[in-house]
Amino acid sequence: MAFGWIDEQDRARHRAGLVRVLRPRDAASPLLDLASNDYLGLARHPEVVEGAVRAARTWGGGATGSRLVTGTTALHTDLERELADFCGFEAALVLSSGYTANLAAVTALAPHGSLVVSDAGNHASLIDGCRLARGTTQVVGHADPDAVRKALAGHDGPAVAVSDTVFSVDGDAAPLTGLAEACREHGAGLVVDDAHGLGVLGDGGRGAPRGAGLAGRDDVVATVTLSKSLGAQGGAVLGPARVIDHLVNAARTFIFDTGLAPAAAGAALAALTLLRREPERAARARAVAVELHGRLTAAGLDAVRPDAAVVSVRAPSPEGAVRWAADCRAAGLSVGCFRPPSVPDGVSRLRLTARGDLSGEQIERAVRVIGETRP
Amino acid sequence: MAFGWIDEQDRARHRAGLVRVLRPRDAASPLLDLASNDYLGLARHPEVVEGAVRAARTWGGGATGSRLVTGTTALHTDLERELADFCGFEAALVLSSGYTANLAAVTALAPHGSLVVSDAGNHASLIDGCRLARGTTQVVGHADPDAVRKALAGHDGPAVAVSDTVFSVDGDAAPLTGLAEACREHGAGLVVDDAHGLGVLGDGGRGAPRGAGLAGRDDVVATVTLSKSLGAQGGAVLGPARVIDHLVNAARTFIFDTGLAPAAAGAALAALTLLRREPERAARARAVAVELHGRLTAAGLDAVRPDAAVVSVRAPSPEGAVRWAADCRAAGLSVGCFRPPSVPDGVSRLRLTARGDLSGEQIERAVRVIGETRP
Ligand SMILES: Cc1ncc(COP(=O)(O)O)c(C=O)c1O
Ligand SMILES: Cc1ncc(COP(=O)(O)O)c(C=O)c1O
Repeated sequence: MAFGWIDEQDRARHRAGLVRVLRPRDAASPLLDLASNDYLGLARHPEVVEGAVRAARTWGGGATGSRLVTGTTALHTDLERELADFCGFEAALVLSSGYTANLAAVTALAPHGSLVVSDAGNHASLIDGCRLARGTTQVVGHADPDAVRKALAGHDGPAVAVSDTVFSVDGDAAPLTGLAEACREHGAGLVVDDAHGLGVLGDGGRGAPRGAGLAGRDDVVATVTLSKSLGAQGGAVLGPARVIDHLVNAARTFIFDTGLAPAAAGAALAALTLLRREPERAARARAVAVELHGRLTAAGLDAVRPDAAVVSVRAPSPEGAVRWAADCRAAGLSVGCFRPPSVPDGVSRLRLTARGDLSGEQIERAVRVIGETRP
Repeated sequence: MAFGWIDEQDRARHRAGLVRVLRPRDAASPLLDLASNDYLGLARHPEVVEGAVRAARTWGGGATGSRLVTGTTALHTDLERELADFCGFEAALVLSSGYTANLAAVTALAPHGSLVVSDAGNHASLIDGCRLARGTTQVVGHADPDAVRKALAGHDGPAVAVSDTVFSVDGDAAPLTGLAEACREHGAGLVVDDAHGLGVLGDGGRGAPRGAGLAGRDDVVATVTLSKSLGAQGGAVLGPARVIDHLVNAARTFIFDTGLAPAAAGAALAALTLLRREPERAARARAVAVELHGRLTAAGLDAVRPDAAVVSVRAPSPEGAVRWAADCRAAGLSVGCFRPPSVPDGVSRLRLTARGDLSGEQIERAVRVIGETRP
């Protein structure tokens, strides 16, 4: 039968204890949330919600077409100008998700005959971008500028190095300065995915590239998501105007995709306005992460020192991680649980989000629950 | 310099007259819209807008995480149940866009060692799905069940045939019954993209698979977008529950992507409610298409007979098409303009949307303008 082969895969997944299920939440969830990527707690901020509401009322429920046909509203253009300005880049292009933004950036900047040097810990969307690109991909060791340098040295023609700025699973930061140096030495471009940096790193949350002094350089391109710190949906590519114009002409996930829904654009724009007015939100998220890590470590847990607002805690096994997360949930705490095949190194872990709006009491409670449920 | 190679491509694009530019529109555009994919005119329907508003107020600006972590709300589950029921499938999975829904369906259903038989006229997102899939792709002639049959006959192991139901450029319908027969003969699955069928084809707009009696079969999977007839953003995969469960576990653009924004889910759900209450909307869009085609042909234009709500008009050249669309716009009419590399056959054309809410006077005006501006 047509899809009969699925059953065997399903059985194998069950045997390995790796079956994923969807767990719908209610609007008024009683759980303490340390699992979302809502780093600044803005998804439900009244101004962000009103940004979405106003945009839906003004522009309708959808963009109605490709950005190249009817899908570009003045709202999209405003958001692009504000994103570019806030993050310190010349131009920006908004897409329907961070995923499609990464596909767009990598495919459009890796033409036939080019080389893409990709960090082994990169996000799935960057990896898929590499797979779709016409250029050749070379995967290099995690966070290793020298490996990037070596890979670039062996290639003639257009090249880019591609890296997350903050790796999504462990929350560790990429060596951006070293990567930029390696790229510059070889005339290569640097493409960084700031999904977990925007809103958290850089002065006032203006992102990791700006924090590292790389924003606005003619050889640096960043991607961001609007779905994490900005509490909305969507993604963007930031870079030199010539690169952005090129994407408009060459990136399939831009050209052949409906524009971002107005409500999401409006929510993201409202979140940026809020970030400009309250720049301390970014530092607060980082401080929460440091405090969370300190308390977890003091409780004897194996937590990774955070570079941004993600705190990762090692679990003994996939099943142990799943049970741990379930026990946290039963005790009122929602945590992320990452295990194969979603982890690059095969190590399962809890993934905690140090939301900037967590109170001291909430941090204490989270650490207590995690300690008490430890497998 | 890092991105220096872009300039040469840019010059080549200019020489060929193929430069694309973004043209932002205002909220109160004076143009008559025959360019969007808002087939039923629902994007700005008060109930759809209020669906978005209510969802943003209840759930916030974004889903805050992957559907597997915090990104599944009860609203997503409601939308999935309603989409499956409306279109006649056992189960549904909502993704952030139609693009990522297609990537999910094709990659998850084309494992290593499998064959994907893909229509030469398929949408970019299906093509990218084929490129990302572990299986081998064989591209076959447009709308040709016998070619699909031949391709499948030469393969041993899991196989799927993949096709748009309504091809996005010319608006012609796929031979669904023939494709399903060819697939069944060889135990292959059929994956159809109903982006331009939902809301237009099938009884009350329930889509082309249902219209062809294929919905709910254990060897048929459909993808839809929420961004066209439903006036929102997002996409979904519809199929047997075992296939949907498999996607939850295997589809990277589902697992590693933030859930669809609540406002978009709420808008789409409101549009479905409206479609159930006013099933005549679908027939009206089809009737507008027939009328538009008849009048264009009577005016001596080379228009393709519509199978759904897209009417395509051949232009003499890419530059001719661009000038034609610009002249229409100057005369108050917004039309789509497709040219290389966005057309499979190299033929440039105007692409008109027969929105179900166009009045007779508007159809007449559109045909008059298109005739008068003809290159
Ligand atoms: C590093 C990284 N890049 C890109 C994405 C994709 O962004 P989005 O979910 O907005 O599509 C994610 C997470 O979803 C991510 O963690
Ligand atoms: C046939 C077809 N499939 C898929 C898509 C992608 O859907 P979305 O724009 O909702 O991502 C489109 C258009 O955008 C399309 O025309």
